[in-house]
Amino acid sequence: MKNDHAGTVTMKPIGVLRTAAAVIPRHWSVSRTPGTVVIDGEYAAGLNGIKAGQKIVVLFWFHRSPEFSLSNLRQTPPHRQERVGVFSICSPLRPNPIGLSVLTVRAIHQDKIEVEGIDMLDGTPILDIKPYITEKENRSDDPGEGA
Amino acid sequence: MKNDHAGTVTMKPIGVLRTAAAVIPRHWSVSRTPGTVVIDGEYAAGLNGIKAGQKIVVLFWFHRSPEFSLSNLRQTPPHRQERVGVFSICSPLRPNPIGLSVLTVRAIHQDKIEVEGIDMLDGTPILDIKPYITEKENRSDDPGEGA
Repeated sequence: MKNDHAGTVTMKPIGVLRTAAAVIPRHWSVSRTPGTVVIDGEYAAGLNGIKAGQKIVVLFWFHRSPEFSLSNLRQTPPHRQERVGVFSICSPLRPNPIGLSVLTVRAIHQDKIEVEGIDMLDGTPILDIKPYITEKENRSDDPGEGA
Repeated sequence: MKNDHAGTVTMKPIGVLRTAAAVIPRHWSVSRTPGTVVIDGEYAAGLNGIKAGQKIVVLFWFHRSPEFSLSNLRQTPPHRQERVGVFSICSPLRPNPIGLSVLTVRAIHQDKIEVEGIDMLDGTPILDIKPYITEKENRSDDPGEGA
């Protein structure tokens, strides 16, 4: 990711999501669908420390979303009646279309993570993987600097 | 965010984090430090539906991080003895330096969110704001499509 010029940043995906699932659930919170995060070989060493059974946060690019326009600042989510602000919902149509899924690690190989709980399409570019941290407490397993 | 050319995406911050705090905690999970997310005016309508008391996920750009190199694929986090993969920790030095913080909303104004729990520096560019969802369940307050 580079600061190319005033106010913009350029990112390069670190890998891709693969799944054979024909139907993709609308959200990870209601998904048990399996898939595989395939990391570009040069980044494989970055997976060290991720273990089967844990949850991870996967940030990805909503690469199929149409270009965002200001008319999309308020949207009506499925099963709701009112238009609400894009930053209060999980719509893939957003100013910076970064998706966030919390996935369960089923197995890990050199450059692949078998996961459960996907809500991404096959071919989705992966931008980052982070540990899943929920508790507001002093932790013995230090999350490291920053966020 | 645009797909400029093969394999890269360009993002434009939607706002900036402001804080007067002199000391910034190393991680949101151990922070009660206050700050203000100031959204660019054109995106202010996107905040509709965010309410005081709720938690939000804020994605931001680690704009002070040095350029990532492959020698940083394994890092030694603070208070740990071993080098581990960057994708298993929260280091700001990562291939795509996107930060993630879970913040509590204290108050909301037209284009500003007063938050508690920051771990970002004053001036940090904000990339996205999402609802904070933790439960793997069928939800009545539908999180909307995608992640």
